[in-house]
Amino acid sequence: MADRSGAFSETQVIARLREIFASSDPRIEVGIGDDAAVVTGEKRQVMTTDMAVEGVHFRSDWSTPFEIGRKVTAANAADVLAMGAIPDYLLVAVGLTGAEELSWIEDLARGIKFEADLAGLHVIGGDISRSEKLVISMTAVGHCDKAITRDGAKVGDGIFLSSLTGWSAAGLTLLQSQGSPKDETQEKALREFKNPTIDYGFDSSKATAMCDISDSIMEQAAQIAAASGVELYFDAKLITKSEEFSSLQSLAAELKIDVWLLIFGGGEDHVLFATGVDLPGVRIGEVLSGSGLSGIPALESDRVWSHFR
Amino acid sequence: MADRSGAFSETQVIARLREIFASSDPRIEVGIGDDAAVVTGEKRQVMTTDMAVEGVHFRSDWSTPFEIGRKVTAANAADVLAMGAIPDYLLVAVGLTGAEELSWIEDLARGIKFEADLAGLHVIGGDISRSEKLVISMTAVGHCDKAITRDGAKVGDGIFLSSLTGWSAAGLTLLQSQGSPKDETQEKALREFKNPTIDYGFDSSKATAMCDISDSIMEQAAQIAAASGVELYFDAKLITKSEEFSSLQSLAAELKIDVWLLIFGGGEDHVLFATGVDLPGVRIGEVLSGSGLSGIPALESDRVWSHFR
Repeated sequence: MADRSGAFSETQVIARLREIFASSDPRIEVGIGDDAAVVTGEKRQVMTTDMAVEGVHFRSDWSTPFEIGRKVTAANAADVLAMGAIPDYLLVAVGLTGAEELSWIEDLARGIKFEADLAGLHVIGGDISRSEKLVISMTAVGHCDKAITRDGAKVGDGIFLSSLTGWSAAGLTLLQSQGSPKDETQEKALREFKNPTIDYGFDSSKATAMCDISDSIMEQAAQIAAASGVELYFDAKLITKSEEFSSLQSLAAELKIDVWLLIFGGGEDHVLFATGVDLPGVRIGEVLSGSGLSGIPALESDRVWSHFR
Repeated sequence: MADRSGAFSETQVIARLREIFASSDPRIEVGIGDDAAVVTGEKRQVMTTDMAVEGVHFRSDWSTPFEIGRKVTAANAADVLAMGAIPDYLLVAVGLTGAEELSWIEDLARGIKFEADLAGLHVIGGDISRSEKLVISMTAVGHCDKAITRDGAKVGDGIFLSSLTGWSAAGLTLLQSQGSPKDETQEKALREFKNPTIDYGFDSSKATAMCDISDSIMEQAAQIAAASGVELYFDAKLITKSEEFSSLQSLAAELKIDVWLLIFGGGEDHVLFATGVDLPGVRIGEVLSGSGLSGIPALESDRVWSHFR
């Protein structure tokens, strides 16, 4: 960690980050500042890493550093939740362009800290590097008694979402078309794009298979169907009856976009997608004997969101 | 992970990476491919993250993808060793430009796997993203009974290096000036720059403080001195008597660079720097009552290597 950014020294940045990420958790023996953090482990752990790049996963002209920090943290935390695990530790590597003010870096750190606190993640280490484009790479560690993988969906299970997908994609469409929001529904979409609400309290104890929707239901449900050797049948009627559907549908109409494309093709909601019996959240279908996906309403386009492309 | 590179799909890349990183270690319950890996943890763990960026930490026109993969892995493994810990798991996030061939990505992965095998690290997860410049961010996890931090150096301890520093900086100087090596010593320097030899067998059980030299002795010894509240005295005579000194000195003369600048100001050797009594490696000084560093020969320049700048 020898690089420097702006007019302040790396030592100054690290000192500020140590303050921001200070934790009194007794499991953290050594935090930020040595070659590695020293922590108390658990018998069964989950570990996941996720990289976010300026212009691909976020845009500094669209989001504040606080929002960017939150969003990348949320994406990593959601991967821990998607295994049915409890979040423990977070490591953060950041490539800075050198144009950032110290206050900008602090705001990024505060955003990370804010979401990490929601998730129960403790930031225990990091790295600062120089990069032409801002890049943030995180590794999240959690623990569980039994991991919920993608291959456990059983015939007869229901399919559940912790909440309706599509809001983040709607928010992105909104940003790309008009910019600022005109009503509460538009505000919600923008907010979900910038800082998706993660259902940290989702009770997945009875889930048989699970993932979080980072890409799209279409892509990720197909992975669960293949891994579990089942067919996932989606019931549009169940979805239309869900609490948030009508407002998302109105917004889709305003944006001149197919609401089903938002729901099934939208990504980055980081909503939990789970199979099982009597799960919380929105029931959207059931697991059948067969393969692949069925019941998805015919879409006006086969476009799925892959970040900004 | 929805991005694509080149003419092949991300699914193809991940399938190849799963093959390359396949492990039969019983501690790995779920490896690459789900939202997170599931592994067996340990009571006391060390965790560290390190980001490497094209043009800052490595150059694709100087190093093969295999060499780049090895070097970034080595830097992460060295941080685990520097805590006196045993390497366990590695997570790898890579930002690809999209210009890479599948074979290039495979070679990068093979380089990571090669060094990970040397270190005893198992690659359990990763992320592929799109980035304008190649960026590689890793997180390494290890375990130990007792961590060796930077604050334990005691008056009366010796100062030890697992091997002499300066080779990597000499290799970089060589690459910047003439390019291809002309003799065995130059070859060694180039090799140490591209793929620093990590002393995975270094017995640090009696070390009181330790770090690996990623930046330079001058910078990092100062951190140990400050954290431990001691003075670190370097004895140039001990260093000149060390096995590799005369060849490094000859090379320094050829490169018209101060050999002491290489040794004390050179970085990226990832040599282990430790204090204690009767440690293995090269004894280069002793711990005194006081503060700061002393005994470093007057340098012709105050330049220290910070990667390529």
